[in-house]
Amino acid sequence: MSGLFVVFEGGDSVGKSTQVRMLTRHLAERGVEHLVTRQPGGTELGAELRRLILDPASGDVDHRAEALMYAADKAQHVHQLIRPALASGMVVVSDRYVDSMIAYQGAGRALDVAEVSQIAWWAVDHLRPDLTVLLDTDPAAAVATIERKDRLEAAGLELHRRARHHFLDLAAERPAQYLVLDARDTRERIAAAVAEAVDRLLRTRENRPTQVGG
Amino acid sequence: MSGLFVVFEGGDSVGKSTQVRMLTRHLAERGVEHLVTRQPGGTELGAELRRLILDPASGDVDHRAEALMYAADKAQHVHQLIRPALASGMVVVSDRYVDSMIAYQGAGRALDVAEVSQIAWWAVDHLRPDLTVLLDTDPAAAVATIERKDRLEAAGLELHRRARHHFLDLAAERPAQYLVLDARDTRERIAAAVAEAVDRLLRTRENRPTQVGG
Repeated sequence: MSGLFVVFEGGDSVGKSTQVRMLTRHLAERGVEHLVTRQPGGTELGAELRRLILDPASGDVDHRAEALMYAADKAQHVHQLIRPALASGMVVVSDRYVDSMIAYQGAGRALDVAEVSQIAWWAVDHLRPDLTVLLDTDPAAAVATIERKDRLEAAGLELHRRARHHFLDLAAERPAQYLVLDARDTRERIAAAVAEAVDRLLRTRENRPTQVGG
Repeated sequence: MSGLFVVFEGGDSVGKSTQVRMLTRHLAERGVEHLVTRQPGGTELGAELRRLILDPASGDVDHRAEALMYAADKAQHVHQLIRPALASGMVVVSDRYVDSMIAYQGAGRALDVAEVSQIAWWAVDHLRPDLTVLLDTDPAAAVATIERKDRLEAAGLELHRRARHHFLDLAAERPAQYLVLDARDTRERIAAAVAEAVDRLLRTRENRPTQVGG
């Protein structure tokens, strides 16, 4: 029996971690085995790579080197945690995955987005989520509701706007695998929509014929 | 004025570091500014990445994660050292470069060699050496002349044979940019052949018209 891979994507401060928690509670109440994780990080090696990218001692880290290190983090994460959990039939919930890397590297404009996409998908050996929940909102609106306005503006509102468009483009390419929700909606309504979509996939999985040897 | 990029490639124990030293001495005698470096490593970040790959605390490092970390090392190396040195007109001599990554990852058979090649060349933003000196010999013959026989046999003679064929294939693809030499020849005759090829390229470079603004 193979598990179910659910990913939350979207900009900063759109409520991803809240929704990850709410879905986790829903799965726990239903008695569904699950693994909650996040990218970047999630493994020892991933945490070390993240530390290296952010460490001032690393000096001026090249754009390509940075993208390759984030890709290495993803490769290790999928190899060490996500695939084994899926193979044992668990529901894996990840806060960010490949789309975030594509959207932010693409938004930074230093690198070709199609090339970054190719490397990111190669890194994870083309493991696609069964469902990606995209919490979408105008970055300027997200800023208005939180106190991190200064930080976000320093990073450049324009960059976050470009990232948003990359997220929406990725969702539009594979509409059947995406649930695009308005992040300004109440957390309860968002959580209900996510739970409904996940429950539907779980029912499909239960009705799937057992594989030979599985 | 742009510099000259010379790379030494080949298996273990074929005499690459000796030849790097002999070429360095030749360049110093001719008064040619040069930078000597090696891959992997060569930068702070590269050394840290290498340490992470070999550190037992990193656990079972995924093949893709490892390849991506070696590629990140190359990206940083080219960005931080090789390109600036070439831009200032220096001769850059590197002990190993992209071909070693392709040959060894390919020989390991866990990954597709064409995909590894694509990632490695992307990492270095397609910076090709002006000259690659391939020191070629049958790995079994290299073993017979040194004391590291046990170590090499433990790593698998077959792996080194496959790497050799990848090196030769890469040289055959671009014969004009490669100097393939029999590593069993004397070090003096090998050094003379390398010096002649490098001197020829330096003469061509001196006769090149100066670029506008250069």
